[in-house]
Amino acid sequence: MTPAFDKLQQALKRLPGVGFRSAERIALHLLVEKPERLRPLVEALEEASRAVRRCTRCGNLAEAEACAVCADERRDQGVVCVVEHTPDLVAMERSAAYRGVYHVLHGRLSPINGVGPEEINWAGLRERLATGEVRELILALGNDVEGEATCHFITRHLAEVGAAGAGVKVSRIGFGLPSGGGVLYADAVTLKSALDGRRDYT
Amino acid sequence: MTPAFDKLQQALKRLPGVGFRSAERIALHLLVEKPERLRPLVEALEEASRAVRRCTRCGNLAEAEACAVCADERRDQGVVCVVEHTPDLVAMERSAAYRGVYHVLHGRLSPINGVGPEEINWAGLRERLATGEVRELILALGNDVEGEATCHFITRHLAEVGAAGAGVKVSRIGFGLPSGGGVLYADAVTLKSALDGRRDYT
Repeated sequence: MTPAFDKLQQALKRLPGVGFRSAERIALHLLVEKPERLRPLVEALEEASRAVRRCTRCGNLAEAEACAVCADERRDQGVVCVVEHTPDLVAMERSAAYRGVYHVLHGRLSPINGVGPEEINWAGLRERLATGEVRELILALGNDVEGEATCHFITRHLAEVGAAGAGVKVSRIGFGLPSGGGVLYADAVTLKSALDGRRDYT
Repeated sequence: MTPAFDKLQQALKRLPGVGFRSAERIALHLLVEKPERLRPLVEALEEASRAVRRCTRCGNLAEAEACAVCADERRDQGVVCVVEHTPDLVAMERSAAYRGVYHVLHGRLSPINGVGPEEINWAGLRERLATGEVRELILALGNDVEGEATCHFITRHLAEVGAAGAGVKVSRIGFGLPSGGGVLYADAVTLKSALDGRRDYT
């Protein structure tokens, strides 16, 4: 098309879930079909970029010092669910199954990729544990090697935070068949997780 | 999440092909995962919004008076393909099957929705026809009632542009089975179009 159009298309193509064709469609939409939507989008992007920052406590998205979850007094501040990324937190919130607070690591340990404890938000978690306010830690990390390594690292370093760390109850979320999933359609690794995670049923 | 985040998500959701979840994913991507991509995107949007305008000749996207197609001397300026919207032009160009120029109507006649010839780029087409430079008109409009009505209107008003209009050869693109499509999978209306559009085969 035109240089500026192509550049916009390239920028849009870098967004998750947007391919070459969708980028073209969105660019045409914003430049030809609904040009009145371009300005509000740019403004929303700029405002969000300016206003949204990380919660100093848990690493979640926030517009103040503390995020909406940390600031909510009805949430149990003594129970901390550790997640890898903000989208994981969003998914947990969507399930409405959890009433504690979070800690976002913004990554997971992966020595092979040069990701050590310094590269993730481990220092923040250690600090929170040291205050002695955390009673329970729920590790909601993925069912893979890096998730396993990160969980292992956290539990291994609990003692390091002193007496406070020793009393913390630690659990890891369950693995197995997803809701609505049958054994027939599950892959081998999921079935192994499901067997390992079997519970008494009497 | 946060007010600014929600506002961004709403703005993203208005884009074609972007639903609630994709909007959330894109917003998290631009604010948390890859914040370095937000600025180039905003700049590309603003630059495109500033630079891209309509070709004064055909209505296509352009960064100068004339679009790339109209300015290309290797294109046959005497053959004009009439399309509804810019994306249709893009699709035609992608097929690389056409070497003439275009005219973008930016709509089609739909009296029931209050869209008359004043609401579409018909004045521009009439002007081009009046110059006498157009030898052939290819109507590449959709295979539906409004497409039919628009084609009908254009042919009916050809005489109106004077002697120049009378000599113009007019055709409408073919309708029938899409490439790779079998009779078995075609819907009834397509099959009717295909029957109506049958050609001698000897």
